[in-house]
Amino acid sequence: MMKNNKKRQSKTGLPPGSHIYTGKKTESKTVIETYSYNLEKYHHTVKDAPNVENQVSNLKYWINVTGLVDVESVKHICDQYGIHHLYQEDILNVFQRPKVEEEDEYVFVSFKSLYWNDAEKSIDEEQISLILTQQAVITFQENAGDSFDYLRERIRTENSMIREKEVDYLFYRILDITVDTYFDIMEKMGTYLEEIEDEVIAAPKSEILMKLQNNKKDIMVLRRHFYPMRDLINKLSASDHPMIDAKTKKYLRDVLDHTIQNIENVETFREMNMSLKDIYLNSMSHEMNRIMKILTIMSTFFIPLTFLVGVYGMNFKYMPELYWHYGYYSIWAIMIAIVLGLTYWFRKKGWF
Amino acid sequence: MMKNNKKRQSKTGLPPGSHIYTGKKTESKTVIETYSYNLEKYHHTVKDAPNVENQVSNLKYWINVTGLVDVESVKHICDQYGIHHLYQEDILNVFQRPKVEEEDEYVFVSFKSLYWNDAEKSIDEEQISLILTQQAVITFQENAGDSFDYLRERIRTENSMIREKEVDYLFYRILDITVDTYFDIMEKMGTYLEEIEDEVIAAPKSEILMKLQNNKKDIMVLRRHFYPMRDLINKLSASDHPMIDAKTKKYLRDVLDHTIQNIENVETFREMNMSLKDIYLNSMSHEMNRIMKILTIMSTFFIPLTFLVGVYGMNFKYMPELYWHYGYYSIWAIMIAIVLGLTYWFRKKGWF
Amino acid sequence: MMKNNKKRQSKTGLPPGSHIYTGKKTESKTVIETYSYNLEKYHHTVKDAPNVENQVSNLKYWINVTGLVDVESVKHICDQYGIHHLYQEDILNVFQRPKVEEEDEYVFVSFKSLYWNDAEKSIDEEQISLILTQQAVITFQENAGDSFDYLRERIRTENSMIREKEVDYLFYRILDITVDTYFDIMEKMGTYLEEIEDEVIAAPKSEILMKLQNNKKDIMVLRRHFYPMRDLINKLSASDHPMIDAKTKKYLRDVLDHTIQNIENVETFREMNMSLKDIYLNSMSHEMNRIMKILTIMSTFFIPLTFLVGVYGMNFKYMPELYWHYGYYSIWAIMIAIVLGLTYWFRKKGWF
Amino acid sequence: MMKNNKKRQSKTGLPPGSHIYTGKKTESKTVIETYSYNLEKYHHTVKDAPNVENQVSNLKYWINVTGLVDVESVKHICDQYGIHHLYQEDILNVFQRPKVEEEDEYVFVSFKSLYWNDAEKSIDEEQISLILTQQAVITFQENAGDSFDYLRERIRTENSMIREKEVDYLFYRILDITVDTYFDIMEKMGTYLEEIEDEVIAAPKSEILMKLQNNKKDIMVLRRHFYPMRDLINKLSASDHPMIDAKTKKYLRDVLDHTIQNIENVETFREMNMSLKDIYLNSMSHEMNRIMKILTIMSTFFIPLTFLVGVYGMNFKYMPELYWHYGYYSIWAIMIAIVLGLTYWFRKKGWF
Amino acid sequence: MMKNNKKRQSKTGLPPGSHIYTGKKTESKTVIETYSYNLEKYHHTVKDAPNVENQVSNLKYWINVTGLVDVESVKHICDQYGIHHLYQEDILNVFQRPKVEEEDEYVFVSFKSLYWNDAEKSIDEEQISLILTQQAVITFQENAGDSFDYLRERIRTENSMIREKEVDYLFYRILDITVDTYFDIMEKMGTYLEEIEDEVIAAPKSEILMKLQNNKKDIMVLRRHFYPMRDLINKLSASDHPMIDAKTKKYLRDVLDHTIQNIENVETFREMNMSLKDIYLNSMSHEMNRIMKILTIMSTFFIPLTFLVGVYGMNFKYMPELYWHYGYYSIWAIMIAIVLGLTYWFRKKGWF
Repeated sequence: MMKNNKKRQSKTGLPPGSHIYTGKKTESKTVIETYSYNLEKYHHTVKDAPNVENQVSNLKYWINVTGLVDVESVKHICDQYGIHHLYQEDILNVFQRPKVEEEDEYVFVSFKSLYWNDAEKSIDEEQISLILTQQAVITFQENAGDSFDYLRERIRTENSMIREKEVDYLFYRILDITVDTYFDIMEKMGTYLEEIEDEVIAAPKSEILMKLQNNKKDIMVLRRHFYPMRDLINKLSASDHPMIDAKTKKYLRDVLDHTIQNIENVETFREMNMSLKDIYLNSMSHEMNRIMKILTIMSTFFIPLTFLVGVYGMNFKYMPELYWHYGYYSIWAIMIAIVLGLTYWFRKKGWF
Repeated sequence: MMKNNKKRQSKTGLPPGSHIYTGKKTESKTVIETYSYNLEKYHHTVKDAPNVENQVSNLKYWINVTGLVDVESVKHICDQYGIHHLYQEDILNVFQRPKVEEEDEYVFVSFKSLYWNDAEKSIDEEQISLILTQQAVITFQENAGDSFDYLRERIRTENSMIREKEVDYLFYRILDITVDTYFDIMEKMGTYLEEIEDEVIAAPKSEILMKLQNNKKDIMVLRRHFYPMRDLINKLSASDHPMIDAKTKKYLRDVLDHTIQNIENVETFREMNMSLKDIYLNSMSHEMNRIMKILTIMSTFFIPLTFLVGVYGMNFKYMPELYWHYGYYSIWAIMIAIVLGLTYWFRKKGWF
Repeated sequence: MMKNNKKRQSKTGLPPGSHIYTGKKTESKTVIETYSYNLEKYHHTVKDAPNVENQVSNLKYWINVTGLVDVESVKHICDQYGIHHLYQEDILNVFQRPKVEEEDEYVFVSFKSLYWNDAEKSIDEEQISLILTQQAVITFQENAGDSFDYLRERIRTENSMIREKEVDYLFYRILDITVDTYFDIMEKMGTYLEEIEDEVIAAPKSEILMKLQNNKKDIMVLRRHFYPMRDLINKLSASDHPMIDAKTKKYLRDVLDHTIQNIENVETFREMNMSLKDIYLNSMSHEMNRIMKILTIMSTFFIPLTFLVGVYGMNFKYMPELYWHYGYYSIWAIMIAIVLGLTYWFRKKGWF
Repeated sequence: MMKNNKKRQSKTGLPPGSHIYTGKKTESKTVIETYSYNLEKYHHTVKDAPNVENQVSNLKYWINVTGLVDVESVKHICDQYGIHHLYQEDILNVFQRPKVEEEDEYVFVSFKSLYWNDAEKSIDEEQISLILTQQAVITFQENAGDSFDYLRERIRTENSMIREKEVDYLFYRILDITVDTYFDIMEKMGTYLEEIEDEVIAAPKSEILMKLQNNKKDIMVLRRHFYPMRDLINKLSASDHPMIDAKTKKYLRDVLDHTIQNIENVETFREMNMSLKDIYLNSMSHEMNRIMKILTIMSTFFIPLTFLVGVYGMNFKYMPELYWHYGYYSIWAIMIAIVLGLTYWFRKKGWF
Repeated sequence: MMKNNKKRQSKTGLPPGSHIYTGKKTESKTVIETYSYNLEKYHHTVKDAPNVENQVSNLKYWINVTGLVDVESVKHICDQYGIHHLYQEDILNVFQRPKVEEEDEYVFVSFKSLYWNDAEKSIDEEQISLILTQQAVITFQENAGDSFDYLRERIRTENSMIREKEVDYLFYRILDITVDTYFDIMEKMGTYLEEIEDEVIAAPKSEILMKLQNNKKDIMVLRRHFYPMRDLINKLSASDHPMIDAKTKKYLRDVLDHTIQNIENVETFREMNMSLKDIYLNSMSHEMNRIMKILTIMSTFFIPLTFLVGVYGMNFKYMPELYWHYGYYSIWAIMIAIVLGLTYWFRKKGWF
């Protein structure tokens, strides 16, 4: 997250309209796929997006752009659909806050797709930009992930709801799938927190605090995405943009419910994280008490005994006890009595 | 709560309209009971719900569906009453937030019934869906609980208010009973917290922190239900849906008062939980102080004495004291003087 | 407070309209007093409230009902004045939140009168219900307290403002007196917190934490009453109910100012309570430091000395020092040097 | 602050309209000064305020009342200007929250003037009431302070802006000066907190916690004045009262900016206070660690050595080492080796 | 920050309209530069600003005033453009909150430019005032910084967007650049916090707490600038001032997004700062546990052994063991057995 800032700053001072891709260059090229479909027809082409004027009137289009390194291609496709250059920058600058902007000709949405990195128990993010036009949905993603595979399959399937309905339904489905993947992350983070909880109870180690600290950073990343995501979907579900149908808005309210649930979950995790830290810190001071008890018990037993044997180690000429026949045995008897007395006392205090 | 997420996620990627029951399969089948009644008549049938068209005009209906495993039955009855497929999903997906949706033909409400599990000192939950139509109230519950037994009895009773009034009164009574059961939970949790408080004061043990941690999770579950419940009832009590009468809204405002009281109680419990943790942690450090005091007293008494006897254990050839006749007794006198001096000093400090 | 829930729950499942008194039965009967007055006349009767129709047009009435055990009497008097059965229940159920409800024919207000219990340093509460009608104010209280004695006297006094003005002025005066008694509580709690503060500074004992915990519960009780009380009075002072005069609303705004001041005070006490806990906990760790210092000083002085005398207690045949004439005195010299050196060192560290 | 409540309560139960001065009686009498002025003329009289009807039409008046012990004089002057008796009480009751009330004939403002008491490092307060009428500003203050000296001088000065402008400008100037004195307090408190910070770093003593506690109470007093002061000035600067000119409102917005700045400062001090407490508490536990290190180092060095010399203090008949010629020297060699080894080990751990 | 208050106060009691520069006098004189430009022309003059009437109608002007010591020059230029004297004061008083004021003839904006001081790891601030008039943008800055160098270059460049567009675009660009520099600070502070994090993990030292305390003060400075900055830009982006074009407002919304991102970042840093403090404090108590373990292990091993050798150092005449031939060796055997037993016990507890 802090690392995000590092890159972000490279644009300082540049005028708006400077098209610079600020993400990681994991994809070496930019792939443009176009799916044109209606209830009867389905067509899939790679590296070719139709101009707005060339769109067939009874077809719907999904243009999916993967990899943003080829800035010119991104710019070209945006210009074809009349996207404002500020939004073009937003597509390329992957450090955006989730946002929605409604223009007369299109709706622009930008948000993050999140993935749970199981190796590092942390969260990876990818920026998705989404444009809804009259006949087409355009999506931009940084990497060729598998987020949209399910949609691809549904579009291929005849009689699927996507084929049947308008493009705003496809638009809704993309948002819905994204929010559903958030549930996956919540589930995995929940499991991870349960693991940490088990560790804290079983054998609290110093590393746990670092784990909790890192987990807290992740929780804060989630909060930073979930809250604007809720606002975004709330705005869409209450929008009166002509391209978003009343029925789609009902669906979007359903997605809104899910984002609120996500927010509630993340707040719960936040509280749990803090609780686990408290429990860990307490177990530390518990350990301390145990250490001190051992020391105190040892000392309390042996300090008086050692004194006693010291007494009879003195070299005074006139020490009658030393010459008693059973002096040595008496001293052992006294010492055993002391030990028994202390044992009784400690037991009464509940230390054994 | 975290466990909820695990199941929830199984729906990721499915299109809306996929009817999947996400709850525990405790009931093996789905039972549909229909109560038809007015002031004079009362009829009770099992496994048969009248179609909307077949409803007798001067009768009121309560259709109670128990167990949601038979997804087709649920779907069938919903379709009969024209319930939107999104709400059908909400009925089956038991991980919903409490919500209310007003449609022209019906009002859909979904919330949780909560039970105090006395064995585990934790909270069990069951999702209740509630549909108010012109002439009928339809309820869906996961298990054949006893929540509605009181209502069944009232409907059977002649001249009861339920028999007399319209179905929106029955609708209100169901919400009222649910919120009343929340008071039961609050009471039991209050008693449980008092038990923990007594334990903390009497003999603070390490397990208390885990109990408080688990209790805190329950408190958070309650908060997650009570706040949306308040919003839900607030919305209903201010609704201008034609099926909800002004008089019923007055009753609903009364329920609203109770939900706000519940919220205040749960916030109080939250603060108490935190306070108990503080008191527990403090008792830990108090214990530490006591341990250290014992060690310090022991050491302070015996360390100088042990030194002293060590002195006269030395083997120097020329140590005049060793040859004094009362040397040994003098040393005892000195040591007793030291002990008395230290005792006086500790007493002045208030340690004994 | 938790105890409140216990009783509250006894109504679970009962239909609205069930008249059950949920308070403590401290009064054995219900006494109804009626004060009829105008600028010239004053009449006081016990156990008899005039029906609305029987009210003399130029008289004003104050009907004061003390003790709620006789549910039928309460019901009867409410029915005479056409009070909705939900409010009748509210009068009898003493676990209400403070609330105000405006009806066409009357204004219903319910709130708590609070008393400082000096023996237990805690807060007692009594529910007051207040009904403003065209010509009469009706008050219901659980116990025959002395809260209204001042008002009784004012009504008896000729030419008093109460005698002169309409009943809404009496209505305002009752609220004003109640809020004024809150100031008394704040003052007593303030004094109590100052006492605790003195104790914390003088001699922090373990009980202080329990005192602070109990005090915190009281503070939360106050918050739970003051916030809705503010909303209640705010609502009244902005009301456009015809029975509440513009001039009375100006007076109510004055009461509103006082409730806000009370809220500020209670928030201050909350912060102080937390601060005192911090100071107490710190004094604990301060004590610990002092204990450890004593132990460390003792050990640091005697451990090396004890070692030294141990050395010359060894029985080696060839230990030249043992045969030196001034060996023994030299060892004392060395030990005194060590003590002086350590004393100097500790003094430099500021431990003495 | 708590002490405030004590006096406040003396009014409990009194009807509105009871004029009682609740402040300290530091001034023995009430002095009324009247400044009448316009651009050309200036006149100053003591103990005489003109009646509204007697005001000269092209003159402006400032009537300054100092000392509130003579309740009748205060009442008289208020009655002359038609001030509502509730506001008259507010003037006399010095435990008011800052507030503003707009009436047709005048604007009533009440707030606190705050002074830094350098001896006790705490805050003194004085209540100022301010009434703006068509031609006059009336001010009431408890003590003859020097707050208004600057204004007196400006009024005396020919061609000053106050002489030139209407009385609402004078009204604004009084508020402006008051808020400016708040900056003085902030500055002094800032300096004081810096002093405490230096103390915490140099030599943390137990008293610091009490200082921070007292300072925190002062911070809370400030918050209780600044927030309502902001609301008050905000209300005035957005007022459409005919006596407050649009230009004056622009000036008042400037004052508003300053009150917001004060609020930000006080919130900063609040956070700093908490931080300093944390640093202090940490320095305590740091001290503890140091003490324990000394004890541990001492013990770790001497405990094994003392054991060793103990071994050769045993009186077994057959202990070959005792008869070795270099036995004694060998034991010293071993002990020195142990010391060196432990020194090396501690140094590696970074303890020296 | 506290130091700010010290200077601020020097204006107490002065009437509005007193022009006093409250900043540091780092610049010895005030330099006025004027850039006049349109798409074709570009002219740059120093120490000479055109009067409003003398402005050429198709030219745009940027008047940049550096150094505010020459109060008269600042006053003069403001008077030329009819700036209200309250804003003139705001320009000179560098302790303003960021604010925007819209007048008929101009828009006045005041905010802070922030710089990361890498030597002291803290934040330096400079106040920028910005006035947008019909044809000109006037900027006031305290020091000749390099913040605007980029803009100077763009204005010089033919065909740049600034040359092409109206002055409100220049106005936007100045705000945009300022917010961009905030990102730089966030990045540097992020790096600094990461450094502290590394230190905390590697070797927690006492200074870290002071570093975190100072860093927290900086974070609070940032919050105090970012929140009003967001409000400021929000107000501008929603303004309907005729001088701010709809297109510029779209750009300003983009800047608004960035300020919100900055706020989110600063809140993240705040949480991280607190977490680091917790981790540091925990590492302290961890260290304590380690110290105590060493002490306890040492004591537990040697205390019983020392007792044992003490026993056989006693001088009783009749101690049979002393005369056994293998007595001495047996005692060694017993001691080794004790050591092994304790070693096993500690290992089982996981201390080694």
